This record gives sequence, structure tokens and C-alpha cells, in this order.
Amino acid sequence: MTEIDFTSVLNEIKPTKEEEDKVKSLSGKLMDIINEIAVENDIEAKAVLVGSVGKDTWLHGKADIDIFMKFPLDVDEAYLKEKGLFLGIECIKRMNGKKELRYASHPYVTGFIEGFDVDFVPCYTIKSADELKSAVDRTILHTEYVKSNLKEEQKNEVLLLKKFMESIHTYGAEFKIGGFSGYLCELLIINYGTFLGVLEAASEKWGPKIRIDIENYGTVNEFDEPMVFIDPTDKNRNVAAALRIQKISEFIIASRNFLDKSKKEYFFDKTLDVKLDYTKDEFKKRGTKTLLINFKPPKVPADALYPQIKKTENSFHGVLEREDFRVFDSSSWSDEKNNVIILLEMEIWELNEVKKNLGPFIWSKNHQERFLDKYGNKAYIKEDRWIADIKREYLDAESFIEDILVENKIGILKFGKHIKKEILKKHQIIDILEFLESEKINEDILVFFYEYLNKNVYLWR
Amino acid sequence: MTEIDFTSVLNEIKPTKEEEDKVKSLSGKLMDIINEIAVENDIEAKAVLVGSVGKDTWLHGKADIDIFMKFPLDVDEAYLKEKGLFLGIECIKRMNGKKELRYASHPYVTGFIEGFDVDFVPCYTIKSADELKSAVDRTILHTEYVKSNLKEEQKNEVLLLKKFMESIHTYGAEFKIGGFSGYLCELLIINYGTFLGVLEAASEKWGPKIRIDIENYGTVNEFDEPMVFIDPTDKNRNVAAALRIQKISEFIIASRNFLDKSKKEYFFDKTLDVKLDYTKDEFKKRGTKTLLINFKPPKVPADALYPQIKKTENSFHGVLEREDFRVFDSSSWSDEKNNVIILLEMEIWELNEVKKNLGPFIWSKNHQERFLDKYGNKAYIKEDRWIADIKREYLDAESFIEDILVENKIGILKFGKHIKKEILKKHQIIDILEFLESEKINEDILVFFYEYLNKNVYLWR
Repeated sequence: MTEIDFTSVLNEIKPTKEEEDKVKSLSGKLMDIINEIAVENDIEAKAVLVGSVGKDTWLHGKADIDIFMKFPLDVDEAYLKEKGLFLGIECIKRMNGKKELRYASHPYVTGFIEGFDVDFVPCYTIKSADELKSAVDRTILHTEYVKSNLKEEQKNEVLLLKKFMESIHTYGAEFKIGGFSGYLCELLIINYGTFLGVLEAASEKWGPKIRIDIENYGTVNEFDEPMVFIDPTDKNRNVAAALRIQKISEFIIASRNFLDKSKKEYFFDKTLDVKLDYTKDEFKKRGTKTLLINFKPPKVPADALYPQIKKTENSFHGVLEREDFRVFDSSSWSDEKNNVIILLEMEIWELNEVKKNLGPFIWSKNHQERFLDKYGNKAYIKEDRWIADIKREYLDAESFIEDILVENKIGILKFGKHIKKEILKKHQIIDILEFLESEKINEDILVFFYEYLNKNVYLWR
Repeated sequence: MTEIDFTSVLNEIKPTKEEEDKVKSLSGKLMDIINEIAVENDIEAKAVLVGSVGKDTWLHGKADIDIFMKFPLDVDEAYLKEKGLFLGIECIKRMNGKKELRYASHPYVTGFIEGFDVDFVPCYTIKSADELKSAVDRTILHTEYVKSNLKEEQKNEVLLLKKFMESIHTYGAEFKIGGFSGYLCELLIINYGTFLGVLEAASEKWGPKIRIDIENYGTVNEFDEPMVFIDPTDKNRNVAAALRIQKISEFIIASRNFLDKSKKEYFFDKTLDVKLDYTKDEFKKRGTKTLLINFKPPKVPADALYPQIKKTENSFHGVLEREDFRVFDSSSWSDEKNNVIILLEMEIWELNEVKKNLGPFIWSKNHQERFLDKYGNKAYIKEDRWIADIKREYLDAESFIEDILVENKIGILKFGKHIKKEILKKHQIIDILEFLESEKINEDILVFFYEYLNKNVYLWR
């Protein structure tokens, strides 16, 4: 392994002294204000700093301050929600910030205060996972676990790992990415000791079943995801449940690449400068036909949107192949506001007229009769089954897609009802080469196409 | 069921009185001559009449006389072969016939005598299957079984069944057909009583596992062919072992058709008068591309030739699909002398340049390295597997077939060595529309194409 200077990397990715002081003093002040307001209003709640700021593991310029407001276990949920929102909103007001209401498992408020995003989230004071009343409650446990188990000198290791993960696009548990969460990164450092320790394990030891049970709960066999990392604060939870095999694989490959040839560039975002002509040429060269289905995303949170898009993409892929077209590959993208693009690269997009229609086995006379009534002398026997050579309904993929995207036929596709509604309202089916001439093209879309054409672009430097 | 006059059918398919007398007296005479020659030459052998003539179950005009010469169990094989041939040849000579040597499990001689084909086959005198020394020996047991168990009035039922089977193309155990043997027809009548009894059972009762054990040996579970009919003369043999599921299905369907609408026509060959223009038009209409591979059959017996042709056809089918072409259907044919035709009807015969090449799983660093050495930055990860988009070697089916039919590449095809040699020596790959213009076209070939286009043509009248 070639040596690189981690100190100089850390100089760039670690928060500066000023940044740290600012974040810490702001967080302290906000907590004081919350606690004050609580006392003034007779609300039994206490502010606590959680998340990467609470654990000292945030990356330079990425301090999202998470302030949780702990309520006693015996207050009811309506009270917690109401008073929680009140505390947050009041605090934002006193700090002259801007507020935005959001929803996770229950509503919370985000404030934009002195240049920082601050989440104010109400939760219950729990001491162990057994007392869990809502999903956010465990954040407290996670923060406490990391604070007690991550050694001071390991904080830098977490930063290196998070930044490495980020620049190879495997960081982030949100569905859009399906990668490693911040908490999982911290646990990996606690488990393997150092950044290089994690990479070496990934590179050399990880296999199709990665099983880590740091507190020896003995519950790993209760899960069957590719990676199982038992939550040290809850023996019945796999921290890596949402981690996709694709992201595990990418991390393993990037780890091997880095250990083979270490470069500082692995800790910095790779920016792509994609030329329109390059994109056109590449798609032309492939000899396939790439169709895009373009429509407006429904107004749902990102973590609800992306699974629906993926499901829709897979469903298009499936129905096209069932119809005997051949899909070379597919992908999807959204700006989460105006456009969803489902990309279907077709290897076979035109078909001949005849098609074999598989009928019933010959053994049942009743089934036979229905088939013969329908197909008459077109029916014949192959081994012990009826077959009829019939005319295809659809001879090209584009008109097939066009035709199923109407009210009474769309049922053969599987997707969330929100997307269905949007697609039915308006959609465009367009050849990518034509789309590339349209005014919709922007840098983000070109990057999506580039990533499609160069699937491992981020794993090497 | 509509009634038909079986008597009038029998009048046409049953040997006439003159035919019967002639066949019987000729057979008797031939056996006497054999026995005489044996005595004259001190050969311990005795003639016996077997086969359909021996059992009185031959169809009008189809009397093949089978004379077996039984030798004692203790003579050695070389003696049996030599003396058997001698007896047959000598008998043919005395009758002024013509002779032709043939081979089954051991050599025998066929004579053309007074307008009949007569087989002279040496065998051992056995009393049960336990004493079996060669495959032909059991013919004696079969003849005896049928003679003792088929009632006089059931002989007509056998004739009806055989003729029905013949005209729907399900009769004949030879590999070219893969249908019901004469012995199996006789056993079916013994089991179900009458011609209509067999058809009713086939139509209503036969399922994916047809199991008949007329002597209650209890051995049916030792076989797994679709139809198991335990040989009443050998509990360890399935009489229907070579019967193809295709032929069982066709017989079932024809039975249903006949029972639904009985017509005398079911007992007469359907002759097809195929027009060249019809054939051209039909193949054009389908929109597929039908390629023919034409070569000379190797000089091997028909029962060795057809399995080799079928294997070759299946192998072409398989390698084309492995290469991502799509075969709609395939078939094959031979005149057993000058031409074999393998027909490949292609649904997808042209492909694009890009192709996904599935590589190793990412878990092994060694496998990864070899793949990356080969494909470099074309390699990417899909889930936990390496893939590379590479250029296809073959973009059209015809040039692919052309290219693999050379000495060092033909290994990817699987077929008997005899055919391999003939194909390597000379072959033609030709579009059917072009072939239909060539001087090779004759009635038999047109019938083959017609049957391909109209797969159930014989099952209805």
C-alpha cells in the first residue's frame, strides 16, 4: 500500500476550530433556550444534543444540529407532539430563525438559524430499547452508545470513513442511496478500530454474509440481510437492514482500490463535467434503443418517492420482457420536484408478428375445450401442452408502453398509487437522442446519464 | 358419439381371405424348408413364426413375415450366428428369392420372396425373460403371450387400433416416430378389451402418469416414463419406454376427436397435396427467418440416424439461444440417403453490438483481478457480481452458424460423431425462401414443411 498523509486529509475534512466552537456554542445556547422555555411554560422536557454534532463526528461544513427534547415516558403522545412543536417553534422565534414543519414517525420542526439547519425533535426519555415508544427515541440510545464507546482518537477515523464513503457514493441510509448510515460508520470504527481496519476487513474478509455482533447478543441468525450488524442498543435490530448489496459491493471494491493505490482523491467528491455530445455519441454507439418515460413526481417525501420510482422501473422492465421485448438495462432518476425519468435501454424493441401462446396441459378435456374454442386450428400440441401460434398485439416497445399507460390497461404495471396518478395525468415517452435535444436537459440529468453509462465511475481515483 | 360402421372399415383394412391364405401357406412352406435344411445339415434349430403374421394381427397389404430360428440355449453365439445366416440364405436360395443382410442386436437376413419381405432371425429357445441371451429372444415370448391372451374377436380390435394409430402418425416404435409399437397396441386391447375401450381410456382417464401392470407384478414404480406398461413377459421392462410424450398426447387428442365425431377417414392415411406457392407464402407471412442446414446423412441405420439428427437440431437450438438469438421453433428431416435438413425458425436473428458479460462474484479478490485484467474499465458491479459490457462476436445467426461449423469451433455443438464428420465435409446454410427455389425441392420435403407449419394436421378428419 502506498502511504498517504491522513493528517493533511483531516485538515480538509475535519471541522475547523472556529467551526467547532461556533457549532458547540450555538447548540449549547439552543438547548439552554429550550430548557428555559420549558420551565417558563411548565413543560416537563429537557433538551439533549444528538446526531453527529452530539457525537463529534460531523464533517467540515456539514454540521446538522439535532436537538431532541426528552419527555417523561408517562406523558401522552398528543401532549408530546404539541409541546414539542411549541418548544421548537418558540426557540426558532427567539433566535430569529426560519422554521419549516416536517414529518418523520411524528412531526418535528426544522429551524434555519445562523446559517445552520437545526432539527427540533420531541422524544421520550428511554433507558433501553424495551421502552421504545417511537422510532426516533432510539437516537438517544445511539448517541449515548457512541459517546461511551468511541475513543477520542477514533473520531478522526470516523471522519475518514464517512468522507471516503461519501465520495464513492456509498454513504447515506436514505432510500435514494441505500448506503451506510452515519451510525453504522461509527459502529464499524468501534468494531474494527480504525479507518484502515474497516477497509482491510471489507477488502479481505467480508463475504456474502457479513455478521457482526459487537455486544455478543447471539441474535445474528435472526436476520438474513447480506450485512447484519446487531444494534448494540437493541439486540432485535439490524443496523444495516436497509443497506443494499450493491453498496456493500461498491464499498468493498473501493476499499480494495484504495488499499492497492491510496490517493488523497478518495476523500474528495469526484465532479463530472459531462458534455452533451459525449452523451449523444455514447448512446448512439451502443446500437440499442433507449426510451425515457418522463413524468412529474408526486408530492411525497423523498424516502417514499424513490422506492415508488424503483418499483415502477422494475415493473416496466418486467412487463416489457414478458411481452418478449428484451431490456438491456434500466435506471431511474428524479429531481424530486418536476421530473422523474425512467430509462429503459432496449436490446430488442421490435418483434415479429407470430408469437407462441402457451395453453393448458392436454390432460384436462375442459381446459382443452376453452383453448380450442378460442384458437381453433391454430392450436397444436407440444409434448403434453397446447400451444397456439397467434398474432402479437404489440410489435414495438414504444407503442406497447404508450398503450398500457391508460386508465384501463395500466393495471398490468405495479407501482405506488401516487406515481400512477401522475403518469396517467401526463407523461412523455421519448427516445433519449430526441430528449437530448430538448430544453429539459441540465447538468443533473447529464450526470445521471453519465453515471448510467459509466457505472463504477466513483470507485476509482 | 356418432356411429360408424366398423365392419366396412374392417373390410378395407383386414387382409383378404386370399391374402391370408397366401401368407399362411407361404409362411408354413418357409418354416418347413428351414426345418428340412436344419435336419439335412445337422443343425439343432427349429423355425417359428412370430410378429404380426404369427399373431394374426397384420394389416391388409402389410404382411412382413418374421421367421425366427430357435437354437438350444447351450450353443454358443458364433455358432448361432453362422448357422442362422446359413439357414436363412439357403432357404431364400431354394425359394428363388433375393437376400439382403441386416443387423439388429445380431445379424440376420431378409429375403424378398414371392412379393413378401421375410426376415430370418436366429434366436435362443427361452422359456422366460430370465433366460434372455439377446434382445430378439423376447420376441418369441411376446408372440406366445399375445397368442394365448388375445381373444379371437379381439384381433379385429387390434387392427382398428393399429390402423387408427397409423393414420394419425402415432404408430411405430422406431425412433423416427417414437410412437406405439405393434406389441403395445395388442397389449392395450388385451387390457381394455376393445378399440373403443382404449380410446375411451385415453380420452378420459389417461393422465401425466399412465401406469398399467396387467399381470400385477407391482413393478410400475420402478419406471418414470410418462407411460409405463409392464411387459407381461418381463416384470423389469416397460413396453412403452421409447414412447414419446408427444405421441401419447397426439393419441389422446385424436381419440377425443374421434369419439366426438367418428369418421371412417380416421382409418385412412391423410394424403397431403402441398403446393410450393403455399409453402413460400406461409413462411413469408410469419415474419420470422427460417434457416435450413442441409447435409448428407452418415451411413448408419435409421434408428441410429434419427437420434443423432435430433440431438444436432437441439444443439443448434441451444447454442443459438445461448448466443442471445431467439429460436421460434425447430425441426428436422431426412430422406435417409442424400439429405438431412435441420430447420431453425429464428425469431431474433440479428443482434446489437453490446452484450453483458457476466463475471465472477465480487467476494473473491483473485477472480476479480482476472476479470479486471481482461475488461478494465468496462467492468462494473451489479449487486454482488462483476459485469462487463462487451462487443458481441456475432451479430447475425447465419454467420454465427457458418462460423461454428469448422473443425476447431464445432466442439460447442453436441452431436454424434457420424453427423459431425458429414457436416464438416460439406453443408449448406440457406434461407428457406431461397431453398424453395432450388432443384432439391420434392414432394417429401414439401410435406415436411407442411407438417411443420400445420403441426396437428393428422389429428383431425
